[in-house]
Amino acid sequence: MKVTIWNEYMHEKSNPTVAEVYPHGIHNAIKEGLLEYGIEANTATLDEPEHGLTQEVLDNTDVLLWWGHTGHGLVQDEILERVYQRVLQGMGLIALHSAHYSRIFTKLMGTSCSLLWRVANEKERVWVVNPGHPIAQGLPRYFELEKEEMYGEFFDIPEPDELVFLSWFQGGEVFRSGCTFRRGHGKIFYFRPGHETFPTYYNSYVRRVIANAVRWVAPEPGLVPLETIRPPFPAQEPVPGRNN
Amino acid sequence: MKVTIWNEYMHEKSNPTVAEVYPHGIHNAIKEGLLEYGIEANTATLDEPEHGLTQEVLDNTDVLLWWGHTGHGLVQDEILERVYQRVLQGMGLIALHSAHYSRIFTKLMGTSCSLLWRVANEKERVWVVNPGHPIAQGLPRYFELEKEEMYGEFFDIPEPDELVFLSWFQGGEVFRSGCTFRRGHGKIFYFRPGHETFPTYYNSYVRRVIANAVRWVAPEPGLVPLETIRPPFPAQEPVPGRNN
Amino acid sequence: MKVTIWNEYMHEKSNPTVAEVYPHGIHNAIKEGLLEYGIEANTATLDEPEHGLTQEVLDNTDVLLWWGHTGHGLVQDEILERVYQRVLQGMGLIALHSAHYSRIFTKLMGTSCSLLWRVANEKERVWVVNPGHPIAQGLPRYFELEKEEMYGEFFDIPEPDELVFLSWFQGGEVFRSGCTFRRGHGKIFYFRPGHETFPTYYNSYVRRVIANAVRWVAPEPGLVPLETIRPPFPAQEPVPGRNN
Amino acid sequence: MKVTIWNEYMHEKSNPTVAEVYPHGIHNAIKEGLLEYGIEANTATLDEPEHGLTQEVLDNTDVLLWWGHTGHGLVQDEILERVYQRVLQGMGLIALHSAHYSRIFTKLMGTSCSLLWRVANEKERVWVVNPGHPIAQGLPRYFELEKEEMYGEFFDIPEPDELVFLSWFQGGEVFRSGCTFRRGHGKIFYFRPGHETFPTYYNSYVRRVIANAVRWVAPEPGLVPLETIRPPFPAQEPVPGRNN
Repeated sequence: MKVTIWNEYMHEKSNPTVAEVYPHGIHNAIKEGLLEYGIEANTATLDEPEHGLTQEVLDNTDVLLWWGHTGHGLVQDEILERVYQRVLQGMGLIALHSAHYSRIFTKLMGTSCSLLWRVANEKERVWVVNPGHPIAQGLPRYFELEKEEMYGEFFDIPEPDELVFLSWFQGGEVFRSGCTFRRGHGKIFYFRPGHETFPTYYNSYVRRVIANAVRWVAPEPGLVPLETIRPPFPAQEPVPGRNN
Repeated sequence: MKVTIWNEYMHEKSNPTVAEVYPHGIHNAIKEGLLEYGIEANTATLDEPEHGLTQEVLDNTDVLLWWGHTGHGLVQDEILERVYQRVLQGMGLIALHSAHYSRIFTKLMGTSCSLLWRVANEKERVWVVNPGHPIAQGLPRYFELEKEEMYGEFFDIPEPDELVFLSWFQGGEVFRSGCTFRRGHGKIFYFRPGHETFPTYYNSYVRRVIANAVRWVAPEPGLVPLETIRPPFPAQEPVPGRNN
Repeated sequence: MKVTIWNEYMHEKSNPTVAEVYPHGIHNAIKEGLLEYGIEANTATLDEPEHGLTQEVLDNTDVLLWWGHTGHGLVQDEILERVYQRVLQGMGLIALHSAHYSRIFTKLMGTSCSLLWRVANEKERVWVVNPGHPIAQGLPRYFELEKEEMYGEFFDIPEPDELVFLSWFQGGEVFRSGCTFRRGHGKIFYFRPGHETFPTYYNSYVRRVIANAVRWVAPEPGLVPLETIRPPFPAQEPVPGRNN
Repeated sequence: MKVTIWNEYMHEKSNPTVAEVYPHGIHNAIKEGLLEYGIEANTATLDEPEHGLTQEVLDNTDVLLWWGHTGHGLVQDEILERVYQRVLQGMGLIALHSAHYSRIFTKLMGTSCSLLWRVANEKERVWVVNPGHPIAQGLPRYFELEKEEMYGEFFDIPEPDELVFLSWFQGGEVFRSGCTFRRGHGKIFYFRPGHETFPTYYNSYVRRVIANAVRWVAPEPGLVPLETIRPPFPAQEPVPGRNN
């Protein structure tokens, strides 16, 4: 299983608070967390050529994790389209935290993906609402993050295929924090926690969720996507019993 | 639209606190609330003959509301089956609060419908997560109930067809508080608030939700259920084009 | 309820076969069908200024029906965005037949919306798989279209919120022919039949489905969309009970 | 992974036609098919003590396959309840063909599970409508069964969590042939083909589907079900941050 962690890698270089929390970047904290579960990953960032997401890299990626925020608008059309096509062909995608507003996530959802938010160093509790789901394995009924950014409903996404986590926030909000979707042949998981000023990606429960999700969104071994059918439509093979 | 409000009507007769909050029974508070929206309703209670749910009553009911708690086990098999068949034929059902454990709701869900709970006079906030849904019309982003019983996840239900409300509780829990399901030709809505010691059914938002839900679960005018097919299987009518 | 029927109106002007079937255009055949159910509608076409979909027209449209095929690529970006925003705000959308590949439908779905197809004058049977659904009211178990274009699975759409119709084709294929989706505050219905060379939009069952669907996708009376929240994120109002 | 194949094993002993097709019983044909994929399984039948489903057997079963038809009514209440509880605790269940009417499947669904049917030796085509799903792996766009019983819509089940297969029948019907559901901690897969007079369980595609499904419904390694909470409600542990 080939995993690529993409991070815009901007806050870490411009904001001392973030740099202190993630001195090697959010992507490397996630990478370290996956290693605890025996999952090796490569990383890619916005300012690499082609954002580090060449066709070759993507063709060799089974699961792509995406962290972006301030740089959403800097992602090039061509790279966006390349990632999008790979998802439809079966590459798994994990959209993390502020990636709710990333171009790739909103394009796959078809909605604004807007939400309420507040940075107030408040407590978040992440509750399991689908305890038999692979992504929820090894977790207690809930786990807490002492300080996180709040994301609140209404979260403008399509009805998720499966709802795995719900968050409670100290200030009075709730949020659908773990959602699965299928688009084309690809599986998608959105996971809410992970504001850049908090050490969320060092949290053992968060790491467990991400490792579980990597395994869940991964394409089935040997997945062969159906040929994409696009105009001009190809002639279809005659089938037995057809009337022409 | 013919509406029947069913209440076990037990706490109100045995518990002075409840009697004070609902001197005429929970069913009559709900009935009063529906009248504010121009919806007339009849009531029925556990200790009436056949629990007030004769075949004739049910055949003339488009929407049945159900409040039960301590008397779940007293509902007779025959009445249970009668209500169940009417739901499959298209009668709408609204299960209120502790009706999550009613025989009719668990039979329709196929799961235990268990949950966490706590009575601690704590605040509940009910958040809208499906703002275009008919049941959410006329509501703000959220509404508050100053004191309610807590219900917490994991709520052991099938994945709802639609999730309309999520609750936040002061003590740290979340709950899928407004859920729709279809079973057979019937629509079902589960709505969480409504503990017997709190004046929840006088709350204007709660009344709005229940009125909206009555309209939503009501069968389409002129609904003719498909013939129910049961063992021993009836001979099927030949259909044009069949090969025998 | 204000209804607008949009048709690219191209085949009717260039193909004599189509012109014979729909001498006044597909849009007017649909309009005539809605009138049978007491629903008045306006029409708009591709070659009108702004495709007939000015901001004023859309602001006064509750339900938009869309028929397009050869002209998908001619729909301007600005008009596309305008229609898209209105759907997220609550305008209902009915995508008809080859509108599966329209820019507005694929943008809302987030997938390729590809499918198999064949024009072979073959029989289609449309089966009801959700008989209690408002869109299925007044229909028999199935209805037949003697000659239609075949659309076959895999239909590359997100899992529909509700599946209402399935089609059987004489040549051996099946298709999810009636699908509902919610995006933002808007309801969407995709309905398969309607190839331009067949008199499908004169069929009484098809007309019934479209009339039912218009009523179902219409926004709730008085729907007030939540404020759209977009970057740069607005400051959020403090809420009672928040911890900062 | 411990797999148990349950078969009522009645037709094979009373009907010479069935005996010829399945001389060792349907359960052994399925067992043989799983072995091709390296999955070992035990079998159990209706006339064994406790139907072969003692508490010990079930406690040691990760995945239960169920084939029943004429003997649905002979399954004892106690065994039914035992199987049901194990599914809610996480045991996977695969309901095959006429098991749509089994007591365990209808109890888990909450609906009648009725359908149309016809035995006419007609052709069935099983189409993949969710090509990225684990259960669809290794299959072509569709596969054919030359002769099968027809099952037709409306199939009275709750909206499936995921729809994996749709069937086309020569005589003009369609059917949701591969459906997933979650109930409690358990995953359920319903798979349509498998009439007792046809050699369906020797078909290589059918065997592939069943092997895929066994892996998919299996509980996650180390799954620990949440404590079941039942009336009388247990006192809940205080949780940090609660307000009482």
